[in-house]
Amino acid sequence: MSDLSINLERLKRDLIHLFEIGYDAQSKGVTRLGFTEADVQAKQWLCKQFENEGFFAEVDQAGNVVGRMQPEKTAHVVATGSHIDSVISGGMFDGTLGVLAGLEVLRVIKENDLSLSVPIEVYAFAEEEGRFGGMMGVQALIGELTPEWIMTAHDVNGVKLQDEMRRCNMEPLAALEVRADPGYFKNYTELHIEQGPVLDTIKKPIGVVTSISGVYKWIVRLIGKSNHAGTAPMNMRSDAFMGLANFANEIPRIIAEEGSDKSRLTVGKVDLKPGHAHTVPGEVEFTLVGRDTDDTVMHALADSCRKVLSAIARKHNLMFEFEQMSWLDPQPMADPVISLISRQAESLDYPFELMPSGAGHDAQHMAKVTDAGMIFVPSINGISHAPDEWTHWKDIEKGANLLLNTLVQQAR
Amino acid sequence: MSDLSINLERLKRDLIHLFEIGYDAQSKGVTRLGFTEADVQAKQWLCKQFENEGFFAEVDQAGNVVGRMQPEKTAHVVATGSHIDSVISGGMFDGTLGVLAGLEVLRVIKENDLSLSVPIEVYAFAEEEGRFGGMMGVQALIGELTPEWIMTAHDVNGVKLQDEMRRCNMEPLAALEVRADPGYFKNYTELHIEQGPVLDTIKKPIGVVTSISGVYKWIVRLIGKSNHAGTAPMNMRSDAFMGLANFANEIPRIIAEEGSDKSRLTVGKVDLKPGHAHTVPGEVEFTLVGRDTDDTVMHALADSCRKVLSAIARKHNLMFEFEQMSWLDPQPMADPVISLISRQAESLDYPFELMPSGAGHDAQHMAKVTDAGMIFVPSINGISHAPDEWTHWKDIEKGANLLLNTLVQQAR
Repeated sequence: MSDLSINLERLKRDLIHLFEIGYDAQSKGVTRLGFTEADVQAKQWLCKQFENEGFFAEVDQAGNVVGRMQPEKTAHVVATGSHIDSVISGGMFDGTLGVLAGLEVLRVIKENDLSLSVPIEVYAFAEEEGRFGGMMGVQALIGELTPEWIMTAHDVNGVKLQDEMRRCNMEPLAALEVRADPGYFKNYTELHIEQGPVLDTIKKPIGVVTSISGVYKWIVRLIGKSNHAGTAPMNMRSDAFMGLANFANEIPRIIAEEGSDKSRLTVGKVDLKPGHAHTVPGEVEFTLVGRDTDDTVMHALADSCRKVLSAIARKHNLMFEFEQMSWLDPQPMADPVISLISRQAESLDYPFELMPSGAGHDAQHMAKVTDAGMIFVPSINGISHAPDEWTHWKDIEKGANLLLNTLVQQAR
Repeated sequence: MSDLSINLERLKRDLIHLFEIGYDAQSKGVTRLGFTEADVQAKQWLCKQFENEGFFAEVDQAGNVVGRMQPEKTAHVVATGSHIDSVISGGMFDGTLGVLAGLEVLRVIKENDLSLSVPIEVYAFAEEEGRFGGMMGVQALIGELTPEWIMTAHDVNGVKLQDEMRRCNMEPLAALEVRADPGYFKNYTELHIEQGPVLDTIKKPIGVVTSISGVYKWIVRLIGKSNHAGTAPMNMRSDAFMGLANFANEIPRIIAEEGSDKSRLTVGKVDLKPGHAHTVPGEVEFTLVGRDTDDTVMHALADSCRKVLSAIARKHNLMFEFEQMSWLDPQPMADPVISLISRQAESLDYPFELMPSGAGHDAQHMAKVTDAGMIFVPSINGISHAPDEWTHWKDIEKGANLLLNTLVQQAR
């Protein structure tokens, strides 16, 4: 086999080192929110790793780290990467794997003295995890940021993005200038942990992502009447919670009739009012998050949820209202990238699964400007965004090898 | 007709006056929690109303106000009353109606110079509403208080009952001494607003209570697995909320199979963990409050809830556990009192409904030591424990007239 291999020990060392920047001994997780001190420190450390190898790296005006083998910027690059910011008490691999595997790929190319006709760029996109909404860096790169958004974005504590950027010696509106020229990217391939249980359950080391799910988030309110739980007979109640329970019970039917095996409908947050044991809840506010990889299916799911909620509200004598907080269309990955990754996986003899990504990734934005694809490796028990997020090192190795061989093919 | 009548204007004046003690202009409700300044002031005002009529009143060592026409305490009394403490932002009638109607009854007896062979006592029982757990005064009177409870009881803010009692110049453990001798009470009749929608719905001015529901409160936990709501396929989830929704949907069936038209099952408080829109809830803790007027039915409801929750937990791959926070047996009212109230209502030509009380009342404790009964008047839209609790004055008048004629019959 002429397949190239990464050096797992080097990649492992980098992953463990980066995990220490923002590590919290109490939770045993890492907290490296975008534009915090830990995030800035991690970016500096990352740049240094590129430079230690004789490569070049810079932090652009949106806070993205870009590493490449050669100093000069050339159009039509093969791009890879992910992000190195984290959630609060996150794990070792989310985002960091894709970035550090990209660095390792460059090292292997250099070691093997491979002559490639297309330059490779490795990105650590800024603020992917959502301190200020998420995916800021990649959106800057594809030209989706607006001045208004930059100047008004703030985190849950009310800290403004613009103030944090200035604290990092960045001029907020300069982030608009990192927008890449049309045609700058030849393609984009991202290695990431699955963050779900599928690969771990089916015992395959590799997922080849065919599409990134779209997602909508509703805040739904059902409003009935609060009553004393003793004095209100069951048939005289307008119990808002019973309306929600009825709806939740219809979710499997809604998916069976309108959805696909890639559909997800989740009630994740529920607030009852008044929320007392001895009071029939007169009001419930809950979140409903819907996902599918097909735009038409997503609309069908949303329509069905609305109809079912209306019908249940009528039946239970409740008022029904909802706000659509967000709607993100599904983003298919590019066939050429899917095919190339699949062929490389076959060549490496890695069992793989063609699968959707239920979570959002930088790749879904890159897919708007270039051919994009993603490689998944298994998350044990599907755990992510938590200190016990883990992926077996042998799977890390397979994922990085697959990324290496894919990028080399793309850059030949 | 030889039926006696109360003077509505006097009763109305008293109700409005008492409502002003602890009135909160912002919520337009009254806040007169047990052993607070407003409560103490209300008791003083109440004693004064008895004394203004030439009657006698005292606050006993448990904080109960007892009013009577004659100064001396005589065994085997006809008792009436209710309570004058309130919830936070309560309404005008809850509790106060039964006490002030009792005072008005004494006034009418005096005005009409009726000669009765049995003395009547009017009680305003201390701390009925539950600042320290509820029904403290009546429990002191029937001998159910314990020294340990008195010394450890505290409110939601951690304020101890014993400290509040001392602040009111009361010796906490002296509350144990108010226990009435066996046979002290001939009977007890309490007038109260229904606090539910039944009488208002069926348009009858009077309810004659046949039984006070028993009640149990469980805290139930279903524990599954938190997952990213995008990456976890529907069939790989252990969604704790879906377990709860399934259970809530079975409530009508559980009541149909095991319960009665007097059964109530209520999920009033729900806490999801982690409670994020984009995370499958791995844990839910909720309250389940069950009620019925029949002890056997209550046990059957509880058994069925336990079995259904176990089965659902197995089906959804959840862990199920619950704590029984309280269990209070149902308390039937005494047939002689039910019959007497019913006959008086017929004689007064007041349409009435024989009905259970879903809420707890001082009468349920008095029923353990004497023949007890209750008269309900309608609550508009079933609203209570809220500023817009209301009962039409014509119904207040009917309820008080019925109490008057019942007490006079009992005291003859």
